[in-house]
Amino acid sequence: MGPAVGTAKAPAGEPNAVDRLAELLTEDLNAVDALIHQHMTSPVGVIPNLAAHLIDAGGKRIRPLITLAAARLLGGGGDGPRKLAAAVEFIHSATLLHDDVVDLSSMRRGKKSANLVWGNSASVLVGDFLFARSFNLMVETGDIQVLDILARAASVIAEGEVMQLAAANDADTTRERYMEIIVAKTAALFAAAARAGAVAAGRPGAEAEALETYGRELGLAFQLVDDALDYGGRSLTMGKNTGDDFREGKVTLPVVFARDAGDEAERAFWRRAMGGERTDDDFHRAQALIRRHDAIALTLDAARDHAARATSAIAALPTNAYHEALDELALFVVERAH
Amino acid sequence: MGPAVGTAKAPAGEPNAVDRLAELLTEDLNAVDALIHQHMTSPVGVIPNLAAHLIDAGGKRIRPLITLAAARLLGGGGDGPRKLAAAVEFIHSATLLHDDVVDLSSMRRGKKSANLVWGNSASVLVGDFLFARSFNLMVETGDIQVLDILARAASVIAEGEVMQLAAANDADTTRERYMEIIVAKTAALFAAAARAGAVAAGRPGAEAEALETYGRELGLAFQLVDDALDYGGRSLTMGKNTGDDFREGKVTLPVVFARDAGDEAERAFWRRAMGGERTDDDFHRAQALIRRHDAIALTLDAARDHAARATSAIAALPTNAYHEALDELALFVVERAH
Repeated sequence: MGPAVGTAKAPAGEPNAVDRLAELLTEDLNAVDALIHQHMTSPVGVIPNLAAHLIDAGGKRIRPLITLAAARLLGGGGDGPRKLAAAVEFIHSATLLHDDVVDLSSMRRGKKSANLVWGNSASVLVGDFLFARSFNLMVETGDIQVLDILARAASVIAEGEVMQLAAANDADTTRERYMEIIVAKTAALFAAAARAGAVAAGRPGAEAEALETYGRELGLAFQLVDDALDYGGRSLTMGKNTGDDFREGKVTLPVVFARDAGDEAERAFWRRAMGGERTDDDFHRAQALIRRHDAIALTLDAARDHAARATSAIAALPTNAYHEALDELALFVVERAH
Repeated sequence: MGPAVGTAKAPAGEPNAVDRLAELLTEDLNAVDALIHQHMTSPVGVIPNLAAHLIDAGGKRIRPLITLAAARLLGGGGDGPRKLAAAVEFIHSATLLHDDVVDLSSMRRGKKSANLVWGNSASVLVGDFLFARSFNLMVETGDIQVLDILARAASVIAEGEVMQLAAANDADTTRERYMEIIVAKTAALFAAAARAGAVAAGRPGAEAEALETYGRELGLAFQLVDDALDYGGRSLTMGKNTGDDFREGKVTLPVVFARDAGDEAERAFWRRAMGGERTDDDFHRAQALIRRHDAIALTLDAARDHAARATSAIAALPTNAYHEALDELALFVVERAH
């Protein structure tokens, strides 16, 4: 299977919900990939090289799939949703490039990250290029409503990233604060991707609302599972390192649960570890405390709640293969952690 | 005289062409400043603080002034051009924040640069935020044509920045290559600012073309003068350090002229200095060679040519105070170097 499907395969090699969604939308997805490659060209060689390193590395294309499925679910099709789907993937890619600079990451999708290969400066600038190209694509649809949706999402994502940066090394980060961060940095793009698909299908009203909620809740479930996996191994299948969040001093929900359930000595550990320098031994201690307090299971429970809200948000929408696939996707996003 | 006028004052304290343009457009400019401040708010405190540090530091607001003057020259006014002018300033500000990260700058507009105060990560992310907000502002105009113009400019700017990055430390950079870089990284936004003003005034045809050419040529003149000044002192009035380009290994037109006119020993110096590590002594040698070959004067001659092309591009447009002010601006952009 091409670059559209990916790293989060079902263990036994059988197709998972992302694979099946990609299968259902093969034609759309091929068109989106063509648009992506067409719009990342530039006479400035570094740009397509760096962009391809990231974009062709086997990302799951979950966000563009959501845009396409949302449009198809409501009977929409054609060029509009495809261009938006490509635009959504560009916004996501730009964000990843800048994230990796901010986090000083060295791995992404199982490969060396672009900042490590080309340097931080090139990653910043090519991120800017992809971000600009996402707007070129949206402009091509001629639809100011979807520009509004995605431009708003883009500024919310940046707010979320800055919030996360400001909260780094703050051992007292609350669950509420953490949720606020992930609503902005992750869920906003999922929500906008789904809403834009509905709007492109000519349904800007209640259906768009429902799909926006689906996207937001799915995005939350997705991020919660990611944050659980960061303490749970599987670094090979996920294409990223375990322990990244801990090393970067990001207080995610597993830490919040373990910290709040811990005794005084444990809370002192979290204060020291999240607030300052962290060693590999600290990470193993953190993992042990997270296990002791069942914090992974609690985090996955929270993810499951959001996934359930995602499917119930669209329950009243037409029943068809796309609707079914979106329901399955919500289940899969949580189950991939097991 | 608020933040709209600025650092490039006429020496004797008498108003220069930027001041006069700002005076002519006082009401518009105040509205633009209000829009800017309104759109840079965020509950995430770092964002408005960092943005204000840059945006309120006394930038000249040349690009938004061009948008406003272009619209007024053609009889346009009201909210549209103001929103675009604010959007143009946001794109410019985002670019400056990212530039300073790429160049590891420590000074901007006579103050510590934002990356030095808040760190590179915050500068990258707040740049992203301002860039997204520029599209929010454009969406508010409801005009897909101007979105097209500015989204294209944004991707060209990023291409120019990447080209510049790729050319850094390349002692053999040709004049053609240098021009290609500054057309993209600087002139594209001036051109788009002027064109967007014309389009917002309801004149997307020949008038928009003329103003786009004005903007592009003015932008080239502006950048050439900047590059000349980087070898010419006046670091205090310009709010930046002399020698930045040299230290960053950027081969600008003064270097191209001096290198190409130099003897073998001089060319060897340029090859070594631009291609590798540079000392303060190297900078003084570079300045001496640039003086010997009249490379500053030659660069300013080139700037003067572009400024003349700017004014002749709009010669056939209606004669009025805005037209006059744009003509004066083109003269001033070159004369500020003397």
